[in-house]
Amino acid sequence: MLITHLPDVRWLCGFTGSNAAVVLPVRSRLRPVLVTDGRYTTQAKAETAGVKVVIAPKPAAVAACEWIADAGLKRCGFDEGNTTVAALKEMQAALPAKLRRNMFQPVGPLVSTLRWVKDQDEIAKMRAAAALGCRLFDDIFEHILPGAAEAEVALALEYKARLAGATEMSFPSIVASGPRSALPHGRASAARLPRRGFVTLDFGVVLNGYCSDMTRTVHLGKPTGEEQRVYEAVLEAQEAGVAAVRAGVTGGEVDEAARSVLRRAKLDKWFTHSTGHGVGLEIHEGPRLAAKQTQRLEAGMVVTIEPGVYLPGKFGVRIEDMVLVKEKGAEILTPSTKAWIEL
Amino acid sequence: MLITHLPDVRWLCGFTGSNAAVVLPVRSRLRPVLVTDGRYTTQAKAETAGVKVVIAPKPAAVAACEWIADAGLKRCGFDEGNTTVAALKEMQAALPAKLRRNMFQPVGPLVSTLRWVKDQDEIAKMRAAAALGCRLFDDIFEHILPGAAEAEVALALEYKARLAGATEMSFPSIVASGPRSALPHGRASAARLPRRGFVTLDFGVVLNGYCSDMTRTVHLGKPTGEEQRVYEAVLEAQEAGVAAVRAGVTGGEVDEAARSVLRRAKLDKWFTHSTGHGVGLEIHEGPRLAAKQTQRLEAGMVVTIEPGVYLPGKFGVRIEDMVLVKEKGAEILTPSTKAWIEL
Repeated sequence: MLITHLPDVRWLCGFTGSNAAVVLPVRSRLRPVLVTDGRYTTQAKAETAGVKVVIAPKPAAVAACEWIADAGLKRCGFDEGNTTVAALKEMQAALPAKLRRNMFQPVGPLVSTLRWVKDQDEIAKMRAAAALGCRLFDDIFEHILPGAAEAEVALALEYKARLAGATEMSFPSIVASGPRSALPHGRASAARLPRRGFVTLDFGVVLNGYCSDMTRTVHLGKPTGEEQRVYEAVLEAQEAGVAAVRAGVTGGEVDEAARSVLRRAKLDKWFTHSTGHGVGLEIHEGPRLAAKQTQRLEAGMVVTIEPGVYLPGKFGVRIEDMVLVKEKGAEILTPSTKAWIEL
Repeated sequence: MLITHLPDVRWLCGFTGSNAAVVLPVRSRLRPVLVTDGRYTTQAKAETAGVKVVIAPKPAAVAACEWIADAGLKRCGFDEGNTTVAALKEMQAALPAKLRRNMFQPVGPLVSTLRWVKDQDEIAKMRAAAALGCRLFDDIFEHILPGAAEAEVALALEYKARLAGATEMSFPSIVASGPRSALPHGRASAARLPRRGFVTLDFGVVLNGYCSDMTRTVHLGKPTGEEQRVYEAVLEAQEAGVAAVRAGVTGGEVDEAARSVLRRAKLDKWFTHSTGHGVGLEIHEGPRLAAKQTQRLEAGMVVTIEPGVYLPGKFGVRIEDMVLVKEKGAEILTPSTKAWIEL
């Protein structure tokens, strides 16, 4: 199999460079091969173990295909979801004409799927990333002030993250206040925090390559009864989602556990996205926790549980934990309080 | 033509959402169509003009293909370099069986290529992004101190960028000091700045969607004669590259103008990358300014000129401007001094 998706390459052999391909000779005596270019000669040897490093001054996928042909291999699986039509054509063009027609077989995201279940070392890293996220949340309240721009809150959060060792954020931070909290993807804007209203913070850090992801929604000033009722319903839904997590249940069952709480509260119409997703080297991995998903959870997966309710033009609430799937339940990796916070 | 590459979508119609496709009916009376989902109903109408907005609760490319079939269209171009093999299969599956075989024709990056030449509004935005980059560079010297971590310098730079209105950096900032300056891709690390040696800063901001890109190399303490000679050669090569830029010359000619200076100085062996690239909504666009590139520059293109010399284990120097191609020459958009700076 030829692997060109960089998170898969990193997971397989540890290499973090930007031009890379791995050839995994299945049922063959050949060693796995990492292909990269001369910029990374030193780095490739330092970061990897168990692979033969091949250096070539060209795109790694092309060089890997030349290696595959030279090695006498006749069939090669590839991940069609991470290979462009043009890249496949280049891969074929790198082969002798007689091998082009039948060499490449789409086999789907085999390695990405293996990454869904984390080993102990990965879990330790994800625990550390999630814990850093919680420390940042617990330390951000002084910046959540009426009149502050959402972008200023995000910047303070991100500055603290970097000081604490995060290499970057997992995704553009969401700080959505007042009516903007009703936008599920309300990236921090120039909008100023209101005297009264919700502020949703959805953010994550990358620490040692692994992503964290968490959401909390806090309130500035006195809430209305409706705001409190919606918050309580979302919290109940979120806790029901977490309670449903254990090895063997399907993504659809976890989604339904959270969604049914909101249905009983007549709020499910405003829960317009899925309940969660896997997290790891990428911020969005499988499995998906969404209606009708039949994929079963396995111990060692790390997933988010993040129901929300969004009342357009009024306000929104989302609460999200990152949890580790265990045989008999879930361990919450983001222990920051989910109780009502009024600032 | 079906356009799914998000910078192309934004360029065509202004939409900035994350699930989007544009159908451009060529030689037809149909209006262009923007397809997105219900999360973006309000945003799509606010951001766009001249397109019909279609909302569908599914991946935009799939919904766009259904629209194409309903509209009675029989052939559709797509950009095979930005479409995965799996996405093409999904696009085909969205069509009635009899249309699948012949509908989609690879036509390459037609829209991306149009983006290479900027209009007046885009040039104003790029000028503003580049000017912000220069202000940041001119304001960072107080942080360039022996003992400071490279990552601290990068963080200070990025914090100032965000305070000044940048939404994000164009790419992970490079702060490479001492022997690490010999790494062309020396992302800011925990390494500490030396008492004596070069510090290369290569960074860019995103302002109003447009990227800037610039590099300066400064020196801490007294330089050696070799360090000064290499710096002067790189500066001369960079200025020769800029001087070669005007409408009508090829990317290869600009590359050769810079490279030949280093060849005369017997340093070309250590100039291991190309001379530059286009910049715009994406940090790396065409045209490429590299050996043998026959693409001719056109007025309105914005490109980088960034030769470097990297002596492994010793030090490296790179100097980069972003320049606007004009009929009779180049306008430097990054006027920060390139003279020797000793801190």
